[in-house]
Amino acid sequence: MSQFQRVAVVGRKGSPHVIDSLTVVLRTLAAAGVDAVLDSATAAMLSRRDGVARERLAEGVDLAVVVGGDGSILGVARDVAHIRVPVLGVNRGGLGFLADISPEQITDKLGAVLRGECTVEERFLLEAAIYRQGRLVDAPAAALNDVVVHAGSMSRMMDFSLFVDDEFVYEQRSDGLIVSTPTGSTAYALSAGGPIMHPRLDAVVVVPMFPHTLTSRPLVVHGESRLRVRIGDAPTPRVSCDSQVDRELQANDEVHVAKHPHVLRLAFPVGHNFYESCRSKLDWATRLSGRGLGSRGGPT
Amino acid sequence: MSQFQRVAVVGRKGSPHVIDSLTVVLRTLAAAGVDAVLDSATAAMLSRRDGVARERLAEGVDLAVVVGGDGSILGVARDVAHIRVPVLGVNRGGLGFLADISPEQITDKLGAVLRGECTVEERFLLEAAIYRQGRLVDAPAAALNDVVVHAGSMSRMMDFSLFVDDEFVYEQRSDGLIVSTPTGSTAYALSAGGPIMHPRLDAVVVVPMFPHTLTSRPLVVHGESRLRVRIGDAPTPRVSCDSQVDRELQANDEVHVAKHPHVLRLAFPVGHNFYESCRSKLDWATRLSGRGLGSRGGPT
Amino acid sequence: MSQFQRVAVVGRKGSPHVIDSLTVVLRTLAAAGVDAVLDSATAAMLSRRDGVARERLAEGVDLAVVVGGDGSILGVARDVAHIRVPVLGVNRGGLGFLADISPEQITDKLGAVLRGECTVEERFLLEAAIYRQGRLVDAPAAALNDVVVHAGSMSRMMDFSLFVDDEFVYEQRSDGLIVSTPTGSTAYALSAGGPIMHPRLDAVVVVPMFPHTLTSRPLVVHGESRLRVRIGDAPTPRVSCDSQVDRELQANDEVHVAKHPHVLRLAFPVGHNFYESCRSKLDWATRLSGRGLGSRGGPT
Amino acid sequence: MSQFQRVAVVGRKGSPHVIDSLTVVLRTLAAAGVDAVLDSATAAMLSRRDGVARERLAEGVDLAVVVGGDGSILGVARDVAHIRVPVLGVNRGGLGFLADISPEQITDKLGAVLRGECTVEERFLLEAAIYRQGRLVDAPAAALNDVVVHAGSMSRMMDFSLFVDDEFVYEQRSDGLIVSTPTGSTAYALSAGGPIMHPRLDAVVVVPMFPHTLTSRPLVVHGESRLRVRIGDAPTPRVSCDSQVDRELQANDEVHVAKHPHVLRLAFPVGHNFYESCRSKLDWATRLSGRGLGSRGGPT
Repeated sequence: MSQFQRVAVVGRKGSPHVIDSLTVVLRTLAAAGVDAVLDSATAAMLSRRDGVARERLAEGVDLAVVVGGDGSILGVARDVAHIRVPVLGVNRGGLGFLADISPEQITDKLGAVLRGECTVEERFLLEAAIYRQGRLVDAPAAALNDVVVHAGSMSRMMDFSLFVDDEFVYEQRSDGLIVSTPTGSTAYALSAGGPIMHPRLDAVVVVPMFPHTLTSRPLVVHGESRLRVRIGDAPTPRVSCDSQVDRELQANDEVHVAKHPHVLRLAFPVGHNFYESCRSKLDWATRLSGRGLGSRGGPT
Repeated sequence: MSQFQRVAVVGRKGSPHVIDSLTVVLRTLAAAGVDAVLDSATAAMLSRRDGVARERLAEGVDLAVVVGGDGSILGVARDVAHIRVPVLGVNRGGLGFLADISPEQITDKLGAVLRGECTVEERFLLEAAIYRQGRLVDAPAAALNDVVVHAGSMSRMMDFSLFVDDEFVYEQRSDGLIVSTPTGSTAYALSAGGPIMHPRLDAVVVVPMFPHTLTSRPLVVHGESRLRVRIGDAPTPRVSCDSQVDRELQANDEVHVAKHPHVLRLAFPVGHNFYESCRSKLDWATRLSGRGLGSRGGPT
Repeated sequence: MSQFQRVAVVGRKGSPHVIDSLTVVLRTLAAAGVDAVLDSATAAMLSRRDGVARERLAEGVDLAVVVGGDGSILGVARDVAHIRVPVLGVNRGGLGFLADISPEQITDKLGAVLRGECTVEERFLLEAAIYRQGRLVDAPAAALNDVVVHAGSMSRMMDFSLFVDDEFVYEQRSDGLIVSTPTGSTAYALSAGGPIMHPRLDAVVVVPMFPHTLTSRPLVVHGESRLRVRIGDAPTPRVSCDSQVDRELQANDEVHVAKHPHVLRLAFPVGHNFYESCRSKLDWATRLSGRGLGSRGGPT
Repeated sequence: MSQFQRVAVVGRKGSPHVIDSLTVVLRTLAAAGVDAVLDSATAAMLSRRDGVARERLAEGVDLAVVVGGDGSILGVARDVAHIRVPVLGVNRGGLGFLADISPEQITDKLGAVLRGECTVEERFLLEAAIYRQGRLVDAPAAALNDVVVHAGSMSRMMDFSLFVDDEFVYEQRSDGLIVSTPTGSTAYALSAGGPIMHPRLDAVVVVPMFPHTLTSRPLVVHGESRLRVRIGDAPTPRVSCDSQVDRELQANDEVHVAKHPHVLRLAFPVGHNFYESCRSKLDWATRLSGRGLGSRGGPT
């Protein structure tokens, strides 16, 4: 018997492999006697016409299954966080940090999850709000990984000031600034030199992008901190959330970044382990396979 | 009127400048009608014979003033943390991260502190315990900055395994591992590539030292985490606390690192600000003075 | 008596300080009996109408004086390298890596240079050529600092393959790739984690920008190497030279980067020293001023 | 018919796998009608008594085969560089940067090398000489990878000054300094943040070890440069070559590092390629296997 009555299913667009995985997901749900609801785009991929609009997808469901990998989960997170439905990810191949079920494991692992053999982790999101002359511009945007304030074009620089909880931190000239959650710390922030942060840590890391001085370094602050980035001299500044939502900024704008009021509830098959994901994705076991740096010598 | 009745005074050994500062400190205490207690070594520096043993210094005092800089505070922290007496630091020159009063500010700032114009920050310490064949070896040692497990000699490597809260993290070959508090994050851990962590963050960062693979990166975990480093193949492994306490290890030893039961209470003059210390010590304002990297070009 | 008969003068647009410096430069040239030739834009800044077109500026001159800093020299380098006229830089303030005369030193140092008290260093340039379906697109562009192949927009990634002297190096997913000369190694490449290279080194460094794996690192190859970057999956790829010349790329384009046939001849007042510029610009003397990281502890 | 008449064979001590590989090597040499000469330690490993002293091993041989990996080649390099005999490396498992034949390839690849199907690359060595009060102490020591000047004990710091070609570079406080050849750039220097340098590059990289300021960065200078490290305040300073030769230093000593008069001639089977070694050893192909950082998002 399934713990879930009604499950939303979303597939990443444009990949034939996703269609195969979706078919297995739907078959597994049917076998467990669970109703499946598809969003319009996913239904269309399967030549079905019973899809519902994405923004109404999460209504009345107990679980959302996302087929396509970590990137697809970032997109769905924004749509479902407010109704607290847990999200379970199926990867296109190999494992992800967020989507921990590979295509060949769908029947077994999704089946087990439906029987209740799963754990749910809460991951906080960030919210980025743009203030222009003191007034909010647009509705704030959500980010599961990171909010990136940047100069708009590669190899351009911008000037900005950073404040944390109303304390002045620094004035910086760089290509921009990444503000990352623990969830995002293994993504863009890591490639920019930030630390890996355990998902349960209540913290945010601020990572400068190609700073114009050598003394700028990643800074980890409490997850409840309220950050303000005040844009100075910058040709075409922008702010982006998870590289998916992207908005134009103007000089003197302030971008406020703080915790989003909702959390994402991520479902994992029992046995999921963050460090195991790191070992697999970041190849921490490299040296055991004879790889690694050249020999240093050492006693002969 | 002073908020404090009895103040312990400790000076860093071997520096003539410290004697000058100690004299000003004692004069300021006397002017405020406060009793001063010196440890034996400090008394001897001033040719006095009324010093008390270091381990009894903190008994019955309301405040400890340490003259000599951040390094001296590390040493005193271990002795006074258990009795919760606040520690106020006077630097030898310039500012420190922990000792925020420069020699020329002693009269003004120490005077103000004695009148109660001070803030007290709690900083947690780490505790390192060595287990050999399952049994504790020696009493655990305390560290305010960091616990460093290392190969003993520069340019040697060691193998070890890391566990956090009993979860296996990785097996690593490197020169060693730095486990740092937020307080220590601006010291050794920073020079090894770790992030800066705000002092109020309840977190610990694990920074590999010259790892033999390129995929090893700083890892930030919750401050309540219990870390275990299991020593593998290593010629002369050691563990050191704040580079001041140093102990030999053997193959198969386990070093357990966790929060120390006591905190250090650090006193600062009113107005102390962590980011101001960073700007001053790490020279974050560099670029405003015309320094910084070479020009990238940009639109002409 | 001046060693030079005819000197070209170029000023950075849009800065009132530059006009002051230009005036001093022209007065110093006149006092030494040297003819000055201005380009049209610089003449206009001084409300003069005797400017010549930029591309004809270097004809028949013995020296070009550039007022405005390192960035201005990058622009002039492309125009004058082919006629081998030495370029002398005057900074807007402080010192630069390329422009080593500050405003208040103009009379003394430019005067000395005109008397022959100068050294000339040759700096090689790079040349970037775009090949589409095997055919050259546009004339190759020159760069004194760096050629940057990038994804066009911040926080986007691109796939590409790198070949050096027709040997396959790697396939990479990242924000892009910086190919830098020793001259450029203290600019953008340094902020991306590249090494500092001495100006006399005949080498080129390839620095990945936010690579999607942790194993990608800066690579230094011989200055005579011929590099090819083959563009793979990329939304809006571009190539830029010194952040000043910027061209669109398409999937499957190849960007060929190799030494430019001409060198830039940089003039410096006698006594110029690369490491002195590093100490001044990069603030290598920081620690002597009491700055630096927090105390590690060490023997008490 | 073999291109070689007489081949020296050296095996790494203490590994049973090495004995197996040595047996195959000797059988392959015998099959090709080539005389084999063993050093005493290697002969003893095979229970033979016909070994010759290590320092006489290279006399009259055309090739030296080293079984045991990159580390063993570092040791042999110092003994044979002066007689220019090419060195061919057999690894214990997987591939190395210097030893490019794996155990199972011995018959094929060593056979091919003996028929002349090999390339020989020259790699320069460094030489470290200690000067005390202006006088040379001991004979200079050779290094194929790196010369490391360090504080002797982990987590201690030292002060020193660096001069390149008699120009003052900087005064530094750190754990030490790595001076590395291109050959060593994929070993210790890489783990300390240095760049990868192509083996044919005539350059040396200077990499600071845990420097006490954030502005110290790897510096690449010409291979013919003469470096001097002047020891300042340091508890137990030492200099080591390839982590194999280690000598004590004193305050005010100068360590001179420059190119060694001899080169090592490294033999490789035809088809050896530096970038192939990097891809294999450093796992540059990681991302193609589904590994890599977490998803950044990007357009959905």
